[in-house]
Amino acid sequence: MTIDISPPHEKSDEHYVHPDQVAVALEHFINDEKAGRLAETFKALSDPTRVRIIAALAHTELCVYDLTAVVGLTQSAVSHQLRLLRTMRLVKSRRDGRHIYYQLDDAHIHDLFHRGLDHVMHG
Amino acid sequence: MTIDISPPHEKSDEHYVHPDQVAVALEHFINDEKAGRLAETFKALSDPTRVRIIAALAHTELCVYDLTAVVGLTQSAVSHQLRLLRTMRLVKSRRDGRHIYYQLDDAHIHDLFHRGLDHVMHG
Repeated sequence: MTIDISPPHEKSDEHYVHPDQVAVALEHFINDEKAGRLAETFKALSDPTRVRIIAALAHTELCVYDLTAVVGLTQSAVSHQLRLLRTMRLVKSRRDGRHIYYQLDDAHIHDLFHRGLDHVMHG
Repeated sequence: MTIDISPPHEKSDEHYVHPDQVAVALEHFINDEKAGRLAETFKALSDPTRVRIIAALAHTELCVYDLTAVVGLTQSAVSHQLRLLRTMRLVKSRRDGRHIYYQLDDAHIHDLFHRGLDHVMHG
């Protein structure tokens, strides 16, 4: 007696209804670690206030004072969300004199935000 | 005595440190309703199992049986997540004979997933 303990993506084709489609899907398989990090990235964007901060920074950098005014919250609330967004590498900051400026971490975040907006607007 | 109750984006320029940058940010202002819907979309993607389902469907449609095998979970668990993903319009289904096939709802979802992956991989 043998027990099949191989993970699904290592089973032979006969286990699948459409082996060709499954082969395509498995070619782009992402492991648990990567899926977890991706889920965490999306989770960082799953809050309306953080979305509005990303929206405000989508086309310009802003100092904390201006960002707070644009988003319309207390500086304490904005600072809290900015810390989380920095930890998740969605925004980055630089100091220039007495001002701290925030911008999106890289072009991926800009694209990520706008693809989400496309879905909400036209989806 | 007057109290300023205008929303921040209607205040005069003198309230801002960098009025030009603020003007750019406000040009792309998104309202609360849109920010909420966007946050909900990202929230639907903030779960590792749902991320793996999206990854499996990123380049091909799959019937429920094959999708379950690729993701490596019970059909009950996959069906539960598919219901949520359908409600959020991230995936759509079609029936053909005795099979139900799932695919990404539109190209925005494909792009959204891949921009997130870009961030995780190279960010």
